[in-house]
Amino acid sequence: MIDQLVKAIKKTKAPICVGLDPQMSFIPDTIKGRVFNETGETLEGAAEVIWQFNKEIIDATYDLIPSVKPQIAMYEQFGIPGLEAFKKTVDYCKSKGLIVIGDVKRGDIGSTSAAYAAAHLGRVMAGDREYAAFDEDFCTVNPYLGSDGVVPFLKECDAQDKGIFILVKTSNPSSGEFQDRLVLVPAEGLDGASALTVKEEKEMNLHKLVKDVDKEILKQYRVRPLYEIVGEKVAEWASEPRLIGESGYSEVGAVVGATYPEMGKKLRKIMPKSFILVPGYGAQGGKGDDLVAFFNKDGLGAVVNSSRGIIAAYTKAPYSEKYGTDGFADAARAAVKDMKKDIAQALEKV
Amino acid sequence: MIDQLVKAIKKTKAPICVGLDPQMSFIPDTIKGRVFNETGETLEGAAEVIWQFNKEIIDATYDLIPSVKPQIAMYEQFGIPGLEAFKKTVDYCKSKGLIVIGDVKRGDIGSTSAAYAAAHLGRVMAGDREYAAFDEDFCTVNPYLGSDGVVPFLKECDAQDKGIFILVKTSNPSSGEFQDRLVLVPAEGLDGASALTVKEEKEMNLHKLVKDVDKEILKQYRVRPLYEIVGEKVAEWASEPRLIGESGYSEVGAVVGATYPEMGKKLRKIMPKSFILVPGYGAQGGKGDDLVAFFNKDGLGAVVNSSRGIIAAYTKAPYSEKYGTDGFADAARAAVKDMKKDIAQALEKV
Repeated sequence: MIDQLVKAIKKTKAPICVGLDPQMSFIPDTIKGRVFNETGETLEGAAEVIWQFNKEIIDATYDLIPSVKPQIAMYEQFGIPGLEAFKKTVDYCKSKGLIVIGDVKRGDIGSTSAAYAAAHLGRVMAGDREYAAFDEDFCTVNPYLGSDGVVPFLKECDAQDKGIFILVKTSNPSSGEFQDRLVLVPAEGLDGASALTVKEEKEMNLHKLVKDVDKEILKQYRVRPLYEIVGEKVAEWASEPRLIGESGYSEVGAVVGATYPEMGKKLRKIMPKSFILVPGYGAQGGKGDDLVAFFNKDGLGAVVNSSRGIIAAYTKAPYSEKYGTDGFADAARAAVKDMKKDIAQALEKV
Repeated sequence: MIDQLVKAIKKTKAPICVGLDPQMSFIPDTIKGRVFNETGETLEGAAEVIWQFNKEIIDATYDLIPSVKPQIAMYEQFGIPGLEAFKKTVDYCKSKGLIVIGDVKRGDIGSTSAAYAAAHLGRVMAGDREYAAFDEDFCTVNPYLGSDGVVPFLKECDAQDKGIFILVKTSNPSSGEFQDRLVLVPAEGLDGASALTVKEEKEMNLHKLVKDVDKEILKQYRVRPLYEIVGEKVAEWASEPRLIGESGYSEVGAVVGATYPEMGKKLRKIMPKSFILVPGYGAQGGKGDDLVAFFNKDGLGAVVNSSRGIIAAYTKAPYSEKYGTDGFADAARAAVKDMKKDIAQALEKV
């Protein structure tokens, strides 16, 4: 599946995905009024509102982009009808030739993680017959439970030609609470983790994070942020030959927020075969120039997501004035074009 | 909701929950045959199989237990019909007076985490009307994204009188890959984390984990496993007065695996106001005596889960011989009684 993503990115000249995270507050009142008038103010109605909004966004942008990233939470909150709208959205995007990254952030252990992997990437048996439940092309995975949680997803990647993006360093302000914790690693390496040089650590300003650190300690030990340890594990999972496509990239990617470009630069090195899914562009503050760090010299290696910046473009300047509420889909198309331009300009510097 | 859990535990004299994780392989062929004969081998049929199995297990055990823990992955893999069976199970358990812990391990950031919290604990608006989607009493939460991911759940706990269990140290073999990483913390404390004494660390054998550690380092720094850092954050979230019930326990609990009783002992101290949801009893290897560490002196503070050990009891000695396949529900009832006895005996030692 990673090869198909690479192909689609090359074709559209756009390493991006549009985040289909339809918060009700983003959706024009005209759609809500029309639908609720027919369905009543029900969960089914809310799901239909989401679906009609999505469809217009997709129809207005699909020819410009390689991929979309529906965020399942925004559908799950409307219960069964909401999840039906999620499935309908996945299927419709696929019918339009888009690659679908299910942003589900699932993760559990053993047979439970296998069930999540089956739900989103794989197939299940009902008696002797095989079905696919949600059947996205990629999905996002939470690594907190370790290999037991990730390996079942790797199996589906192999068996079904699918891919995953594992959370490494997320885009949110509090992501550092646990992900940036400095882990003590003997210089010789712990569990095979290669230690950084003192010079590299200085560049990362780790010294400033640990106040008054005794330099003698650093001769014997290395302190490394947890996200790098997770990144190395991703690199290990990604390096399985069966998971490497003809493009040279692995089915196993990572999530690293656009809001942390310095960390992105380091993680780009640590995970050479992984595509990086980069959230946080636009509304969360990440800019085109910040994205350069996430890409390889071939101009590949990352796919940048924008959700609100595209689907709610019509609510903000400069799009609001030109397109108005009724032109929300055209505003999304214009915002996609602007995003492509912003990233293309930045990538000229790679 | 924590007060209701405490009340139910006292009434049933059983700090346990039955894990409703109906893997198809656990479900008797008689049920599968009967249902698929009516429905065909469809996702709807698979969901009906799960529901019929669950209903018999619930009917056979509900009067003995305070709570159940349906694992949503096992339903999600069957798509929309599977999730309908999940919802039906949640509702039925609640109608039987059981407290429902949705094992969903969700976690994201900001508005997305708020959507998950709304989906599982809260309410959503469809126009001007309010609905609850899955409406469990508690749910499990993954902390990897930090406060941004957890705070929206805390808000629903407060607003809806619900509770959460945050993953701290999971029961699986690979949980240590990230959760046990030794984090460097200056002795004065980092982010307010109180450092352990060297004696306490010796008891935890941290010295053995970091080979040849220079004792001079430990005078200036402490190394602490990540799960303790997460545990302290849980204690901080749990200590919000609005979230503390009349029982003295908080709506904010933690997940700590029965398979790691030494860590459980330390975490019990770190999170005094939190109930600990303890998976890993039975099939995963945890025994009654191992559980003592998770409880407070009042005999409360933990709820021990068994899934396979109860719902698939009929497949294993001593239950298989006595009950056979047709007696699967009676076998579950017997296994619940045995589990209660095992834990009660162990708790006499608290």
